[in-house]
Amino acid sequence: MGIQIVRYRKSRKISWGVLAEENIIPISNEAENLSDFLVDGVQEAREKLVKEDSEKVLLEEVELLSPVTNPTNIVCQGVNYSMHRKETGMSSSRPPYNMIFGKAPSSISGPFDAIVKPEHVQLLDYEIELGLVIGKEINEQTVITDENISDYIAGLVITNDVSARDVQLTELQWLKGKSYRTFCPVGPYLYILDEDEVNEIYNLELLLTVNGEVRQSANTDQLLYKPVETLNELAQTMDLTVGDLVLTGTPGGVAMQLSTEELNCLTSLTASPEEKTKVIQRQFEIGQYLKVGDVIEASIASPDGKIQLGKQRSVVKELQLVQNNSI
Amino acid sequence: MGIQIVRYRKSRKISWGVLAEENIIPISNEAENLSDFLVDGVQEAREKLVKEDSEKVLLEEVELLSPVTNPTNIVCQGVNYSMHRKETGMSSSRPPYNMIFGKAPSSISGPFDAIVKPEHVQLLDYEIELGLVIGKEINEQTVITDENISDYIAGLVITNDVSARDVQLTELQWLKGKSYRTFCPVGPYLYILDEDEVNEIYNLELLLTVNGEVRQSANTDQLLYKPVETLNELAQTMDLTVGDLVLTGTPGGVAMQLSTEELNCLTSLTASPEEKTKVIQRQFEIGQYLKVGDVIEASIASPDGKIQLGKQRSVVKELQLVQNNSI
Repeated sequence: MGIQIVRYRKSRKISWGVLAEENIIPISNEAENLSDFLVDGVQEAREKLVKEDSEKVLLEEVELLSPVTNPTNIVCQGVNYSMHRKETGMSSSRPPYNMIFGKAPSSISGPFDAIVKPEHVQLLDYEIELGLVIGKEINEQTVITDENISDYIAGLVITNDVSARDVQLTELQWLKGKSYRTFCPVGPYLYILDEDEVNEIYNLELLLTVNGEVRQSANTDQLLYKPVETLNELAQTMDLTVGDLVLTGTPGGVAMQLSTEELNCLTSLTASPEEKTKVIQRQFEIGQYLKVGDVIEASIASPDGKIQLGKQRSVVKELQLVQNNSI
Repeated sequence: MGIQIVRYRKSRKISWGVLAEENIIPISNEAENLSDFLVDGVQEAREKLVKEDSEKVLLEEVELLSPVTNPTNIVCQGVNYSMHRKETGMSSSRPPYNMIFGKAPSSISGPFDAIVKPEHVQLLDYEIELGLVIGKEINEQTVITDENISDYIAGLVITNDVSARDVQLTELQWLKGKSYRTFCPVGPYLYILDEDEVNEIYNLELLLTVNGEVRQSANTDQLLYKPVETLNELAQTMDLTVGDLVLTGTPGGVAMQLSTEELNCLTSLTASPEEKTKVIQRQFEIGQYLKVGDVIEASIASPDGKIQLGKQRSVVKELQLVQNNSI
């Protein structure tokens, strides 16, 4: 069975640990970032797990943080599940290209942090995604196969690719609408796969609820472009380094529900601002978008429950403008 | 007058230096990346410039490298000059939003390195751009004004936002088509502005030639979204750190020449692959796209010649596939 790495804050100190039932076994490795931790932190975690007298910290005594640290590169796959393609107004079949975009690393936040809604954003949406943490440098010489992929994937995390649809779609390029601070909750666990578990990447269940209502429920066997193919394509395009994060796309069930005509209108260069406003207004009226106070819970696990990436819980908050005179 | 920082390789050793007429004065600072260099490298450069007995290295004895180092974040503005908007098939007026996208940091290459054309790319294009190197952390508290912008811009560089149009436009998100390795030549000089030169950012002449023929010639006074406005908008979206690179957009004159109908066809979700192929074929026939062997030269300077960012020279090469059996 794989192991679950956590990064946590206790009494203002940030540490790494490994989950042992309901407790955390602290790891002495004091790496400030994930790539340094991965050098020997996992090895230490394995050793501490089998030692019977390892010190333990109660889970409820700590604040769990994102196991992926900034700086990092976040590379994302877009519209990579058929159901999500359809609700976006696209053809549901596998497209002729693997759509790739980025998120700013400063969008990363903890698995229990608030998602902060910028004041001007009307269409705030959620997207549960399986996140792959890179474990070995990927460059133009790299060839990834089913046999060696476990070298390149250090572990798995839950990610929420939070999106401001009104910014994302009308501005054509997605970076800005997907990069606001807190728009990438990550964790709680970095699940380190055992070598014999690597095929389980293709059989993980994603579940996201809003205020307890199931919105997204899918299995990673539905991924259109699979990790081996995607990482090979990325190798032919750009370098990835240890600790980088690849988001594999979200399944159906997001708040956005667009017809092809509406999507074409929003992304058209010739549609009038009035036409676009009308489409956005109708989206707003659907009422599925996130509102201040909404609670999003997201989990990823194998159907047999053996692989557990944990459960995120994010509350939507308003942006608190800092009062300069209150400092 | 400002100073010109260079990063160079001589006898396999990489060093920083400052330009003194036709020579380089080496700087003892051995920082591996630009952000570390900026801590005190510029101060040392100023001191060495006034010392009469500083050691010198001949420019022709070294290989000049990109002064911006990887890892970094590259944030780009799209279609930020009217003439370029028009040739892309867009309205030439200032748009209601500042289009932001990214390039992978592994696309950075030296100012005299080859631009490597991936085999499958037909429409290889150039884009000279003024690059701003971030000199002070930008976060959500940051407010940039005409008065303090020189704190946030460490210096200026020439950049070429090389683009595979056939990938960029048909795949909708631009990251992949703009991120192939060698698609971001940077340098040769990092021009550190004097405080009284900061307004000169708005009066720099950009010139790009292909095989000696002028293709792009413009002045940064034509920028639609100016640096103060853009950096403030970025501050409200994402963090930028010292050594990050902001590309401010390219003026008119690129190889791509699209009508509005053609652009709409390429970016449409409902146009057939045949229609898109027809548009790409016509672009290819225009004959302005880069071919193997083409020489691109790019320079940025103030009209009075006082500010000189140097001259890039890039030759287009084919991707050399590594023969595994030759190793």
